[in-house]
Amino acid sequence: MRFINKIKNIQIRNNSLLCIGLDSDIEKIPASLRKSKYPQFEFNKEIIEATKDLVCAYKLNLAFYEAAGKSYYETITRTLDSIPKDILTIADGKRGDIRNTAEQYVKNLFDDWHFDAATVNPYMGRDSIEPFIKRKNHGVFILTLTSNPSSHDFQYLKAKQKPLYEHVVTKAIHWNSNDNIGLVVGATHSAELKRIRSMVPNMPILIPGIGAQSGDLKSTIRYGFNKEGLLAIINVSRGIIYASSGNDFAAQARNTAAEYRDKINYYRNPFFK
Amino acid sequence: MRFINKIKNIQIRNNSLLCIGLDSDIEKIPASLRKSKYPQFEFNKEIIEATKDLVCAYKLNLAFYEAAGKSYYETITRTLDSIPKDILTIADGKRGDIRNTAEQYVKNLFDDWHFDAATVNPYMGRDSIEPFIKRKNHGVFILTLTSNPSSHDFQYLKAKQKPLYEHVVTKAIHWNSNDNIGLVVGATHSAELKRIRSMVPNMPILIPGIGAQSGDLKSTIRYGFNKEGLLAIINVSRGIIYASSGNDFAAQARNTAAEYRDKINYYRNPFFK
Repeated sequence: MRFINKIKNIQIRNNSLLCIGLDSDIEKIPASLRKSKYPQFEFNKEIIEATKDLVCAYKLNLAFYEAAGKSYYETITRTLDSIPKDILTIADGKRGDIRNTAEQYVKNLFDDWHFDAATVNPYMGRDSIEPFIKRKNHGVFILTLTSNPSSHDFQYLKAKQKPLYEHVVTKAIHWNSNDNIGLVVGATHSAELKRIRSMVPNMPILIPGIGAQSGDLKSTIRYGFNKEGLLAIINVSRGIIYASSGNDFAAQARNTAAEYRDKINYYRNPFFK
Repeated sequence: MRFINKIKNIQIRNNSLLCIGLDSDIEKIPASLRKSKYPQFEFNKEIIEATKDLVCAYKLNLAFYEAAGKSYYETITRTLDSIPKDILTIADGKRGDIRNTAEQYVKNLFDDWHFDAATVNPYMGRDSIEPFIKRKNHGVFILTLTSNPSSHDFQYLKAKQKPLYEHVVTKAIHWNSNDNIGLVVGATHSAELKRIRSMVPNMPILIPGIGAQSGDLKSTIRYGFNKEGLLAIINVSRGIIYASSGNDFAAQARNTAAEYRDKINYYRNPFFK
């Protein structure tokens, strides 16, 4: 199935634009799970089981799994196996390298693990992203305007009257012949998000920065979705997966995820002004 | 030991600015090694054993190990264990993410594997790099002007009369209070390398793009090193590790590495014009 249709289908079916970020830190998961062989997987499995009817996507932050050492490969493999096939899976590793290396990343993320999509960094330009884009049934989310405070260091530099991040948008439009490119725009920049959505009316936009990073949910939703009320993917990580540090973590993750989904739906109601 | 001194010491001791890039592709290593449990490690071990007196650094391209699947963690651990402690080890993964995620990368690369240095992507700005810089005995190489053709897409965009890559250099100088920042500048841009070296007379510069990517060795050397004839780290990957596809791969890697080291030393001779 085409990448963009997979997103729309699950957003309609689960009536949700919510993505849960599985930034599962081995030091923050309940002590009772740490005895098992793959603690991050056990944690993820329970979160997924408790929230899979409330989300359109799960995003795995690869750094947190790499930091856990040798369980890395098996933890990601098992986590992906426990996600229903109609939900979008995003490998968040912000990769980017010369072509022959980018091909190795694709081999790992798309061929071996079968992630639907990956986040990539635009700094090195088209040839570093092309091996990802070539895969028509997979997608890439190109870092455009990130949610962190230091996004101002380079992303706002103006060249030819346009900030760098707008140059990234323009190139992304130009490269999108397979209709499988999305953008990453942080929720901490809602005015810019509005402008970017006007430039890409039909591209998926992955929006992190809600919750722990305190981006504004209301304007993020209003400016993020397309005319059908779809294609914004609102990511919340720590705010949901660590809603409770006790053994009720999965139930509390469900409660918090349901609240986020409902708030998002409230703001995307076409009658809401 | 301070990062910058570690580089100078080994460059003097081995009389070499050569870095070998261990982009060890499981599909390109000799068939005889593929039967072993960790074929990439067996390959690396022989390359390292044959070349360790000829280099200042080994650079591991993480993508090639990730692409091999579950042997990833053990292959890198064993490879690092087989590199003499006075030789610089560089994790080439071009990482870059918000602070709490960057800390996870540091934990993996510096605390667990004990790499001396890592390559990072500047797009997300200071806070994405700071967890690396904070580690005084480790170093970072910030992507500045990359060797690939698409480096022109964004890196040359002019803001305030300066190309983006020069803004990266200026910020790198500003962030360098621990004296452990280096830059990545591709050998395919020798005029720009000259200009960048004039801006950072005492920063290490990691220079890929010689060999398979056909950057010019002569001008790369002349413009890359500092006044002491040091601190340029000239990376060659495929040109050395695949010098032979047969069972003599290690011996041929040694011959080719020796040729590169000697050519580099010829051009860095202060009497050479």
